[in-house]
Amino acid sequence: MNLPALPTRLLAEFLGTFVLVFGGCGSAIFAAQVMDTDAGVNLGIGFVGVALAFGLTVLVMAYAVGHISGGHFNPAVTLGAVLAGRAEAKEIFPYWVAQLVGGTLAGALLLLVAMGKEGFDPVASGFATNGYAERSPDGYSLVAVLLAEIILTAVFLYVILGATDRRAPAGFAPIAIGLALTLIHLISIPISNTSVNPARSLSVAWFAGPDALGQVWVFIVAPLIGAAIAGITYRMLFPDQHEVS
Amino acid sequence: MNLPALPTRLLAEFLGTFVLVFGGCGSAIFAAQVMDTDAGVNLGIGFVGVALAFGLTVLVMAYAVGHISGGHFNPAVTLGAVLAGRAEAKEIFPYWVAQLVGGTLAGALLLLVAMGKEGFDPVASGFATNGYAERSPDGYSLVAVLLAEIILTAVFLYVILGATDRRAPAGFAPIAIGLALTLIHLISIPISNTSVNPARSLSVAWFAGPDALGQVWVFIVAPLIGAAIAGITYRMLFPDQHEVS
Amino acid sequence: MNLPALPTRLLAEFLGTFVLVFGGCGSAIFAAQVMDTDAGVNLGIGFVGVALAFGLTVLVMAYAVGHISGGHFNPAVTLGAVLAGRAEAKEIFPYWVAQLVGGTLAGALLLLVAMGKEGFDPVASGFATNGYAERSPDGYSLVAVLLAEIILTAVFLYVILGATDRRAPAGFAPIAIGLALTLIHLISIPISNTSVNPARSLSVAWFAGPDALGQVWVFIVAPLIGAAIAGITYRMLFPDQHEVS
Amino acid sequence: MNLPALPTRLLAEFLGTFVLVFGGCGSAIFAAQVMDTDAGVNLGIGFVGVALAFGLTVLVMAYAVGHISGGHFNPAVTLGAVLAGRAEAKEIFPYWVAQLVGGTLAGALLLLVAMGKEGFDPVASGFATNGYAERSPDGYSLVAVLLAEIILTAVFLYVILGATDRRAPAGFAPIAIGLALTLIHLISIPISNTSVNPARSLSVAWFAGPDALGQVWVFIVAPLIGAAIAGITYRMLFPDQHEVS
Repeated sequence: MNLPALPTRLLAEFLGTFVLVFGGCGSAIFAAQVMDTDAGVNLGIGFVGVALAFGLTVLVMAYAVGHISGGHFNPAVTLGAVLAGRAEAKEIFPYWVAQLVGGTLAGALLLLVAMGKEGFDPVASGFATNGYAERSPDGYSLVAVLLAEIILTAVFLYVILGATDRRAPAGFAPIAIGLALTLIHLISIPISNTSVNPARSLSVAWFAGPDALGQVWVFIVAPLIGAAIAGITYRMLFPDQHEVS
Repeated sequence: MNLPALPTRLLAEFLGTFVLVFGGCGSAIFAAQVMDTDAGVNLGIGFVGVALAFGLTVLVMAYAVGHISGGHFNPAVTLGAVLAGRAEAKEIFPYWVAQLVGGTLAGALLLLVAMGKEGFDPVASGFATNGYAERSPDGYSLVAVLLAEIILTAVFLYVILGATDRRAPAGFAPIAIGLALTLIHLISIPISNTSVNPARSLSVAWFAGPDALGQVWVFIVAPLIGAAIAGITYRMLFPDQHEVS
Repeated sequence: MNLPALPTRLLAEFLGTFVLVFGGCGSAIFAAQVMDTDAGVNLGIGFVGVALAFGLTVLVMAYAVGHISGGHFNPAVTLGAVLAGRAEAKEIFPYWVAQLVGGTLAGALLLLVAMGKEGFDPVASGFATNGYAERSPDGYSLVAVLLAEIILTAVFLYVILGATDRRAPAGFAPIAIGLALTLIHLISIPISNTSVNPARSLSVAWFAGPDALGQVWVFIVAPLIGAAIAGITYRMLFPDQHEVS
Repeated sequence: MNLPALPTRLLAEFLGTFVLVFGGCGSAIFAAQVMDTDAGVNLGIGFVGVALAFGLTVLVMAYAVGHISGGHFNPAVTLGAVLAGRAEAKEIFPYWVAQLVGGTLAGALLLLVAMGKEGFDPVASGFATNGYAERSPDGYSLVAVLLAEIILTAVFLYVILGATDRRAPAGFAPIAIGLALTLIHLISIPISNTSVNPARSLSVAWFAGPDALGQVWVFIVAPLIGAAIAGITYRMLFPDQHEVS
């Protein structure tokens, strides 16, 4: 692939990660639970809607700007792509910076919108942050969270590397990759609120108090480990792939 | 693209906006909440189903008539497309009229069907109108609603302009664009009942009483601002796009 | 398109309509409401899941056998396709018979499976039949049901005729058409339990008692009217379509 | 199609079945029911989310590695493909072993993660196993379960064989096949917890106690019968297919 110049690509990563955080975390913050208290039912979108929203952010932005930057929107994906020979090592840090800045701007705007509802508290509400043990949505231990995040990020990278392989049908990769992120959320929101993406985790943790920020290392380390395992093994096991030219 | 003559295109915009309002607003009016009162559960589709319905109206109609008119179905999209250099300025007003007429006919037919259920009241029920403050589904302020509608319409336009860029994979744009509208609803139904489309907002506001109509200006102004920002900046930032020929 | 010989095509219509009824009506019968009575919550799929199921039956069978028969699976679609000049008039009756036989076999097998749960009663449960007034899921009148079924069948035909037009992107029609059926169900399950398909309605009505059977004429007449309107007007309004060769 | 050497293909089957079990059964174990006990509502994904998850495992892995192995991830699919003339008989046993090993590894890792939540018991919770009679989620008899599993596996194979037929539009098969599995789950989770895949059933049954293991024969026999019927009849009824070269 001939990609555009680096600044244009970084802009695309900035935009894509902005949408991922604004849309994925935003749907969790605003819409997961909206009670009709008279009827005693939740009209909100629940975990299934949040899972769909996260996946759709990647699906739609990969069609919108994936042809510009490759459509990573995730520092772990950039690392895995480099280790698999699909991107150049010198691009890791610029991509990471663009992703973090885009995600963090989204986190700040989410806070601004959320404060338009009386009584909103980003610390008490959790603000869509990831967590383990007492901060896990359904009480999963650190070990379980590490295991789930590593496995699921590795699966995510396998789908990304496989679906963009030159042997896979062209044009469908954003569908496969976006829906893989939906699948990952369907499994693991109760475990860790699902990260598999250090930029997503940091972008909301800044605003959610010291407890959230104190656990965020897990959601930087585990996704990077999972992506590295997948990037290295994919290249070894399925060598007939297209390399960076 | 060689598009057909203007009257045929306006017919396509009329049809597409008709389906958008009849399907999106209709799903909200008829199906969002259908209680099994004995069991105390909602069998209806909730916000997640309404979000899906809105997105599917655009997805299916963009495949059905997008090749005829470009598949805007939304005055803000037409404005953004013109500002991005993808459509001609002289088409703005005809497109806007076709969209408003199609949407309003859908709104009238929705009212007719809804009145087939005893006790239906379009004013008390809200009739799927958009709103802020006391008319926001979950109580968001005017500032939060303005911010959300501007940001989300801009995101919508970026997806539309990016996914129909000549560098993006051909044929997939209706999937990306339709599911972007689903994503936008997953985030913002609780905030404003989600507009990002002045034709959608006006088409039901006519029938829902003075309070609804008194707030509708927000859902004309904010989507147009968001679309304008996106149209202008997309053209500046990603210049290598296809222009109107 | 060069289609195979008529018997092979009828077999495809038989199979497709079998799956439509077994999957769509089956999901409604078995899975719409499955209470966890201790927790007081519905683990079942609700109307949103049934809407998804109906759409997926058409999406998957149109990819599986649509290249054989055109993938109608619905007498109203066959009528509309003939009136739009996309199929030959002499095929209407054979297609209708194949659709009815396939659907009815599915209805019979659904009954057999359902009777494997103690206490199942096809008459009392409704058996996924369509209805109006006291048999409408949310109490809609005959006029509302007629209006909704006519409009929605016309929309369905417009999507089918538009998405299979030679100007539309190739290969995507089953996605557009299947998801259009999901959209139609998202809107109208509470109104009429959604037909838009006489074969679907008859296939379960045989087994659901005289009240259900006494209302089934509505779900034969209204879809055929809606499809005829769409077939005739599409051909007039968008004449540059591919005709039967 | 020219497929890679057998070991590479077995690796792909191993990976795909791993993801199918980890994702499909994992979503059921971790996320189907997550109560907000104060509000008395289920924030979890319910049967509709589990149905989506199972389908997405196949959709995403078929795009990721389907071009390597054919993307079976299911012993019944391999049998049906061989009987339909799409795969070679000598590959049945290697494929079955790879599928079972991948699925079982996923089952073991699911147990490890699940034990990170205090009080988890794989036997009492069911651990996403399939069952009939008292082990059926909604109390369906052995006959109903056999009937449903045979019919639905046959439908699954028809979709697989039809959507990968050389006459079907290229590239879309993973969407059709994955969403067919979602459809199958939307219908039959209440009946049998849905198998249609002996590897999926065995992979969790090992860990769920003697009652689960005692019923697992049904979910080996019924899917294989359904797949065999479909494989043989598809080849007879729609003979103009592409054969193994």
